[in-house]
Amino acid sequence: MTRDDKLDEKLRRAVADLVVRPGAKVSLPRDFDPGHKAGYVDRDDAKEMLQHTLERLAMYQDRLAAQQTFGLLVVLQGMDAAGKDGVVKHVMAGMNPQGVVAHSFKRPSASELRHDYLWRHQVALPERGQVGIFNRSHYEEVVAVRVHKELLEAQLLPSKKTGPRLWQTRYREINAWERYLVDNGIAVVKLFLNVSRDEQRNRLLERIDDPEKNWKFSEADVHERENWDAYQKAYGAMLSATSTEAAPWHVLPADHKWFAQLAAAGAIVGAFEAIDPRYPKVSAQQREALSRAREQLLRD
Amino acid sequence: MTRDDKLDEKLRRAVADLVVRPGAKVSLPRDFDPGHKAGYVDRDDAKEMLQHTLERLAMYQDRLAAQQTFGLLVVLQGMDAAGKDGVVKHVMAGMNPQGVVAHSFKRPSASELRHDYLWRHQVALPERGQVGIFNRSHYEEVVAVRVHKELLEAQLLPSKKTGPRLWQTRYREINAWERYLVDNGIAVVKLFLNVSRDEQRNRLLERIDDPEKNWKFSEADVHERENWDAYQKAYGAMLSATSTEAAPWHVLPADHKWFAQLAAAGAIVGAFEAIDPRYPKVSAQQREALSRAREQLLRD
Repeated sequence: MTRDDKLDEKLRRAVADLVVRPGAKVSLPRDFDPGHKAGYVDRDDAKEMLQHTLERLAMYQDRLAAQQTFGLLVVLQGMDAAGKDGVVKHVMAGMNPQGVVAHSFKRPSASELRHDYLWRHQVALPERGQVGIFNRSHYEEVVAVRVHKELLEAQLLPSKKTGPRLWQTRYREINAWERYLVDNGIAVVKLFLNVSRDEQRNRLLERIDDPEKNWKFSEADVHERENWDAYQKAYGAMLSATSTEAAPWHVLPADHKWFAQLAAAGAIVGAFEAIDPRYPKVSAQQREALSRAREQLLRD
Repeated sequence: MTRDDKLDEKLRRAVADLVVRPGAKVSLPRDFDPGHKAGYVDRDDAKEMLQHTLERLAMYQDRLAAQQTFGLLVVLQGMDAAGKDGVVKHVMAGMNPQGVVAHSFKRPSASELRHDYLWRHQVALPERGQVGIFNRSHYEEVVAVRVHKELLEAQLLPSKKTGPRLWQTRYREINAWERYLVDNGIAVVKLFLNVSRDEQRNRLLERIDDPEKNWKFSEADVHERENWDAYQKAYGAMLSATSTEAAPWHVLPADHKWFAQLAAAGAIVGAFEAIDPRYPKVSAQQREALSRAREQLLRD
C-alpha cells in the first residue's frame, strides 16, 4: 500500500462516519457532534490529509472536465456563520476554477417566485464536465420556508397545495429530482455544516468585534437565533427524509473550520471515486488523424 | 517607498507598454513582439513579481466583493493554444473563486443565434462585486466571423445589414456597449494573447506527442492555421478600432506562458487600481446596531 492509498483509505473511513444512513431518523443536536474531529488534534495534525484531499480533487476534476460525461453538484447547507463560504473557498482552491461554478442562492426574486420552487436551481445546475456548488440550495424550501411559513405566501402556490402535507410532498419531489440527476450523470453531494449554537455566537461576535469583518455582519442573523430550535428541527426532518441511496446527506462537524473543510473535500472525493471519471480514450481513427496533423505541422 | 510600492510601480510601467493607444493603427505581427519579457530572464526571475500581483489581485477582489458597487469584466482573446486557459487558471488562483465567474464561449447554439450577437455575452456579464472572465468573447464576432464569413449566414441578420460596412458597424456597437458598461460601474479589461505562428506549432505538436494531452487536440486547430494571416489581419483591425479610452486593449506577449500570465494579472491589477474599490464604511446607525447585537449575543 502506497502512502496515497493509505490516506485514501483513512479518508474513506472518516467520511463514512458522517453519512446519514437512508431511512435513519435524525434528531439534532442529539445525533451529531459539531465538535467531532475524527481523531485529529488540530489543523496542523491534519495538514498532510488536507493536502492529500486537495490533490485528489484536482486529479478527479481534470478527468471530469476531459471526459465531459458526468457533472458533480455540491449542495451546501448550514446555519449563518456555519462556514459555508470557507468550505467553498477551500474545496475550490484545489480545482481548476474554469471547471467550477459556485452559485449563492439569496432570497428569491419576484420573477423567480413566478416559477415553481425548483426552477431557479435547475437553471443553475452544472454542465457535464463541471463541478457546481450550491451555497444554500433548494433545501431552503424545506428549512427556511418551513421555519418562516409566511414565505410560502409569496410563492403563489395553488391553494390546495399548501396544506400540512406540503413538506412531505416537497421531500418526495426533491428526492425524485435528485435521483433523476444522478441517473443522468450528475452526481449530487449533500453537505450539512453542523455548527453548535455556542460556536455560532462566537463567530457572530467576531464579525462585530473585528472592524474588517463588520460589513459581513447582519443584524438579522442575531434575530434569527431566536428560531434556533425550529431550525434544528427542520434540519433534522430534512436529513431524515432526504438522505437517499442516490444522494445521501453528509453531516459535517463544523465547530472546527479546518475539519469541516477537510470533511467537505473528503466527501466530494468520495463522490468522484464513485463516478470514477476517466480521460477519453483516443480511437484508432483519431490516432490516424493525430499522425496526419503531426506531419502537416512538421512540414509547416 | 516600500518593497510593495516599488513592485507596484514596476508593474504599472510593464503593463503600460502593452496598451494599444486609442486611435493607433495596429498591424500584426509587425507592431508587437510575442517573445517580449519586459526585461525578465525567465519564470524564476519574475517569481517575486508573480507572487506580488496575485496578492494584489486577492486584496482588490475582496474589496470589490465587499463594496458591491463595481464589477470587473476580463475579456480574453487569442489564437488556439495561445494560453487562454492558463491565464484564467493563473489569475483565478489568487482570487476567492466564489467571486469569480469564468465563461467559455463556444460556437453559438441555434437558440443563441436567434438573438442579436451581443445577447449571450450580456447574459453572462458579472454582477456588481464579481469578476467575470470571458474566455473568448463578443470579439469573435469581428474576428472568427470575419475570417469565416459563412458564419454570418447562420446569424439571421436583416439582409441590408450584411454589407461591407458590417465590421465598422460592429466595432462602433461594441465600443458603445463597453462604454455603457464602464459608465455603469463594470470595468472592462481586454487582453489579447499574442502568440507567434512558430510557438503555436510547438504547442499543437505537444498536444499530439503527449498522450495525456491528446484529448485536448482538435484537428480543426491545424486546419485553421491556413487562415493564420487572415486572423492576424482581423485581430489588427480589431485592436485598431476597439481600443478605446473606456476600455483599451492590452497586447500580451504570449510566447512565454509565465510572462503572459504575469502581464494578464498586472493588467487586471491596473484596472482594479483605477476603480479603487473600498470596504463599505459602517454608519453611525449601523454602529449602534452592532453594539445592540453584541449585547444581545453576550446575554445569550
